[in-house]
Amino acid sequence: MNMMNAAVFTGPGRIILDRKPVPLAGPGEAVIKITLTTICGTDVHILKGEYPVKPGLTIGHEPVGTIHELGPGVTGYQIGQRVVVGAITPCGQCHTCLDGRQSQCGGHAIGGWRFGNTIDGCQAEYLKVPFAMANLAPIPDGLTDEQVLMCPDIMSTGFGGAEHGGIRLGDTVAIFAQGPIGLCATAGARLRGASCIIAVDAVPERLKMARQLGADHTIDYRETDPVSEILRLTGGQGVDVAIEALGTQQTFENCLRALKPGGTLSSLGVYSGKLSLPIDAFAAGLADQSLVTTLCPGGKERMRRLMAIVASGRLDLQPMITHRFRLEQIEEAYDLFANQRDGVLKVAITP
Amino acid sequence: MNMMNAAVFTGPGRIILDRKPVPLAGPGEAVIKITLTTICGTDVHILKGEYPVKPGLTIGHEPVGTIHELGPGVTGYQIGQRVVVGAITPCGQCHTCLDGRQSQCGGHAIGGWRFGNTIDGCQAEYLKVPFAMANLAPIPDGLTDEQVLMCPDIMSTGFGGAEHGGIRLGDTVAIFAQGPIGLCATAGARLRGASCIIAVDAVPERLKMARQLGADHTIDYRETDPVSEILRLTGGQGVDVAIEALGTQQTFENCLRALKPGGTLSSLGVYSGKLSLPIDAFAAGLADQSLVTTLCPGGKERMRRLMAIVASGRLDLQPMITHRFRLEQIEEAYDLFANQRDGVLKVAITP
Amino acid sequence: MNMMNAAVFTGPGRIILDRKPVPLAGPGEAVIKITLTTICGTDVHILKGEYPVKPGLTIGHEPVGTIHELGPGVTGYQIGQRVVVGAITPCGQCHTCLDGRQSQCGGHAIGGWRFGNTIDGCQAEYLKVPFAMANLAPIPDGLTDEQVLMCPDIMSTGFGGAEHGGIRLGDTVAIFAQGPIGLCATAGARLRGASCIIAVDAVPERLKMARQLGADHTIDYRETDPVSEILRLTGGQGVDVAIEALGTQQTFENCLRALKPGGTLSSLGVYSGKLSLPIDAFAAGLADQSLVTTLCPGGKERMRRLMAIVASGRLDLQPMITHRFRLEQIEEAYDLFANQRDGVLKVAITP
Amino acid sequence: MNMMNAAVFTGPGRIILDRKPVPLAGPGEAVIKITLTTICGTDVHILKGEYPVKPGLTIGHEPVGTIHELGPGVTGYQIGQRVVVGAITPCGQCHTCLDGRQSQCGGHAIGGWRFGNTIDGCQAEYLKVPFAMANLAPIPDGLTDEQVLMCPDIMSTGFGGAEHGGIRLGDTVAIFAQGPIGLCATAGARLRGASCIIAVDAVPERLKMARQLGADHTIDYRETDPVSEILRLTGGQGVDVAIEALGTQQTFENCLRALKPGGTLSSLGVYSGKLSLPIDAFAAGLADQSLVTTLCPGGKERMRRLMAIVASGRLDLQPMITHRFRLEQIEEAYDLFANQRDGVLKVAITP
Repeated sequence: MNMMNAAVFTGPGRIILDRKPVPLAGPGEAVIKITLTTICGTDVHILKGEYPVKPGLTIGHEPVGTIHELGPGVTGYQIGQRVVVGAITPCGQCHTCLDGRQSQCGGHAIGGWRFGNTIDGCQAEYLKVPFAMANLAPIPDGLTDEQVLMCPDIMSTGFGGAEHGGIRLGDTVAIFAQGPIGLCATAGARLRGASCIIAVDAVPERLKMARQLGADHTIDYRETDPVSEILRLTGGQGVDVAIEALGTQQTFENCLRALKPGGTLSSLGVYSGKLSLPIDAFAAGLADQSLVTTLCPGGKERMRRLMAIVASGRLDLQPMITHRFRLEQIEEAYDLFANQRDGVLKVAITP
Repeated sequence: MNMMNAAVFTGPGRIILDRKPVPLAGPGEAVIKITLTTICGTDVHILKGEYPVKPGLTIGHEPVGTIHELGPGVTGYQIGQRVVVGAITPCGQCHTCLDGRQSQCGGHAIGGWRFGNTIDGCQAEYLKVPFAMANLAPIPDGLTDEQVLMCPDIMSTGFGGAEHGGIRLGDTVAIFAQGPIGLCATAGARLRGASCIIAVDAVPERLKMARQLGADHTIDYRETDPVSEILRLTGGQGVDVAIEALGTQQTFENCLRALKPGGTLSSLGVYSGKLSLPIDAFAAGLADQSLVTTLCPGGKERMRRLMAIVASGRLDLQPMITHRFRLEQIEEAYDLFANQRDGVLKVAITP
Repeated sequence: MNMMNAAVFTGPGRIILDRKPVPLAGPGEAVIKITLTTICGTDVHILKGEYPVKPGLTIGHEPVGTIHELGPGVTGYQIGQRVVVGAITPCGQCHTCLDGRQSQCGGHAIGGWRFGNTIDGCQAEYLKVPFAMANLAPIPDGLTDEQVLMCPDIMSTGFGGAEHGGIRLGDTVAIFAQGPIGLCATAGARLRGASCIIAVDAVPERLKMARQLGADHTIDYRETDPVSEILRLTGGQGVDVAIEALGTQQTFENCLRALKPGGTLSSLGVYSGKLSLPIDAFAAGLADQSLVTTLCPGGKERMRRLMAIVASGRLDLQPMITHRFRLEQIEEAYDLFANQRDGVLKVAITP
Repeated sequence: MNMMNAAVFTGPGRIILDRKPVPLAGPGEAVIKITLTTICGTDVHILKGEYPVKPGLTIGHEPVGTIHELGPGVTGYQIGQRVVVGAITPCGQCHTCLDGRQSQCGGHAIGGWRFGNTIDGCQAEYLKVPFAMANLAPIPDGLTDEQVLMCPDIMSTGFGGAEHGGIRLGDTVAIFAQGPIGLCATAGARLRGASCIIAVDAVPERLKMARQLGADHTIDYRETDPVSEILRLTGGQGVDVAIEALGTQQTFENCLRALKPGGTLSSLGVYSGKLSLPIDAFAAGLADQSLVTTLCPGGKERMRRLMAIVASGRLDLQPMITHRFRLEQIEEAYDLFANQRDGVLKVAITP
């Protein structure tokens, strides 16, 4: 049995480099050789024990690689072909997928998120991909691994926040928090035609990158109350769409307070603890506000679209990769990323 | 100066019959002679001091009447013509109205609700109607005042809950609370093509009327836990759309718990106190759930559509009128209605 | 090799009963034993040579049956289970399906329609079902074969016309032609909440059934010009949505002429020959009109929803079955159906 | 009575500079002093007698100016304030406007287009604006007249084509014809997030500007068959959205032939003569294609949004102004523009 390196969750506080067998492709499955992956904020939640997964699981859900093995019934692909696979792997054939709710594949909450959640993930040398026909997305010629590394999760999620917010041409949009997801939401708001984009964070490098990716205004919330400042910038009107990209009561509530009557709060954060709707900002439920939530859209068509945007030169997310590690250094990478040291935005991990 | 009777809020706990001058129509305005009106749950919130309005205000926002006076610039109507006016009176010409958010007219929360909120309402002999061109809705021949009495608020709001919930053919829908608004949401869900409608309440008469208006299943929450029962009825899947029609933490939370991943919580309630999103039912924000809120859609086109539905015989809401009073008995009517005595659903008030 | 009876197209004008091998289920496939099927107007187009298919093909795309064999990888079903399969069989996993355009599966026009078009169909004793996981839809207990016989095509298509037309509560809708598809569009318009439904045809039995299924008005176009009559019924306004359910220049054009500015023409017909947009009715392209077309939505979730509607008692389409034949009588059945003799609406065919 | 210069249609082939009284503002109306306007392709249709208007009418529907007079009931504006008014002037208060179909104001086709169509237009020194409350849009400080000159029609229409086409992130979009409207559609497609934009025309300057405004590929239809080339560029798939911006059978048909199954043809052209739907490209009506048409969205909120986009620096349409004239030179301007001489795109006319 061939063995490989893998980053394995062994219990709260511990993700370690371990040895595991290289997976084999069953019917409808594929195995890909990972050439590049990264660490997500959600992985840190797992590391800290805030999001429960089974000990022994390989972590990671942002794979870039080449096809190593194709199981029975998987056609139209070649061994060695470069592919991206989304963080969420819909089957495409269950009632929920056919109903258009692919991220909730199988009909239970978060059902489409399998890698590093319910099955082994991609912080490893090899990755088994379920429902390969629906999920293997060939990388267009000319794009490097680093150029498409954000597609599986960060870009899909951030853009999803902009899309589900229903941004229209000429909208004003505020994005609370400019971590990787928030930055992609900022870029997504720009791509959808918002005419005024306001990004909120407290890290100067992140605010600077927000401006590069499309923000017209940035607010450092340590210096200025973001809600007051947004109301000032909008002549007291508030924003059409507020995007929450952190997962805290404070940012959630600020979104609501910055919102125009009839506006939409598009939530991307992973919340823990308690979450409340302040009755005043919620106008007792009478302001025609909407709250939409988005789990990272997946599947090969989504990946194709995102890579097409990268290939078109509309957007370059590579500058978000601030640090690079070998898979052997995964524990070090987690340490840096989880503690947000050294201005880290995203790390690239090469097996 | 001609004087008239009016139901006036004089302070928390007190709505009294008083004398006021008959209003005069300014430019763009009309005055209608009220022939029938009713009391809304929101009026009871006002009475109890839970929703603040200025003492001295005439209450009421569900007017049926005849045109008494047309101000300058109001054309295409005749004195004596029978009309309905929606509870919400959009101007149609401000940025917010032109942007499609008419209920929030003027751009501040709940801005389109004027009658009995920011200007004198219709529990009186006469009512001044602002933006008359956008709001006077002629009653089709052959419909009685009682047949259209639910159009201004109850029917428009309840239907709005079904519409904004995005119900599709074959959806399963649960409606929590079967007061007048909830009953109309039940009827609305039926009209939109839900194939399984589950109504929750504890008052037998309301559950019975829910069945008449379209519910396939009713749940008495005192006898059965509604969330468990809904999950049982849906084979553990939950509902596509859950409509909240009361305004409490309990019903709001039950909606969320009864919801399918990717489903929509359509909220109609007027909340007070605190409102929280339980993180487990909210799946930490990752279940692609949506929360939409609706303030009663108004304007003459909305009223025309609702009256067309009544005229078509699709729906008869007259049985919801359980009690009838003269305007002179308004205090008695409030007493009955506010205390939900004698199986009251809606009262009809005749000046 | 087991043999079976099948209705085979052998050339224009000829569909004959022939013998073919019982199909075998490959990976991802299933074979069902047909217990009931029917003939569609499209089959008549095939018979007449107006829609080209390969000689030797078994015709038919409306299968009701029991599971006979499950290929490798098909799980969650049992042999003998009663199922319906939609006329269109999306794979669920290609770019087009994942993009939400399942009826165009594979990315070429009409790609999702396989049965009796590109692969053997269901006017036979057995049927091989591709992409079985996405397409086998269990029949709810208590429903007979005849009750669900319209689900695979007629009901899905007709309802699709109402759904894609974007019908809103209180809309006025006209449906041109009341054959099986048009009748289902009429029923669909009713289910979506149209308040005024106008059905046009010239066959008294069809107009009568239109009224039973939800039409408020019927127009016999041999007696009355339908466009004038619709304009009269709508006070000169025209309809919000006009549904074309025949596939001729005349009905297409009448839809456009009966349409309100800003309205939607929802087209279901299969057109041949020429089709033109009269510039006057099209207002030179400036009337904000939309034209949408619909190919029968398929897949097991769609079938589940349609059967849920039947099971709820909302709609009974069984009266549309006017004649019953054995598969051995298929040529006789085509003769009756193609020539619309004896008031035929739909025939039921039992192998 | 004060007199002014105006460009008046006196019969097919003749638009002349004439003298007319300065209009007066009635209730709900305003008069603006025109500071800049332009000539539209539609005006050329009028000139040529292809679109009928009453002789004696002042032409022009793209006004930039200052408020000269406010009629009774028009509040919130000041004399001298700089404003733009959309080509289409919805009342905001009729059934059609309240139903969300403002361009068809009044309920008859093209009803919202009044300037230079049913009432005097803006190729004059002064312009009377109906429904002023809904239509006077203040120009943001810092924007010049030339910067906002495209907002009333060209930009609103072109963007409308992109918006109604339902462009999603990552779509491929083709725009047929790169006159002023087509160029704005190209810019609009870019703003909505299309990842591949293909512009078709035969004038090198227009194709060059198309690339500046966002086209990834341009096709000179005299050199290359645009349909074949689009299919080649899209790997045989066709485009998600095809925008027609000319109004001919050829471009309309090419749109259809270049379209992906399930795609949308967004039509902006003003058609005359005959228009047909080729059955093959239309896939007999079975390809789930949509055809949407757009009449220039108007009203002050639309203008506010468009000017916000200009103010944000997202887009600079000023380079489209290739020639400048005084109102006194209007006949010369028409001669140049109607004959598309000297590389003209848009002319600016200063009274």
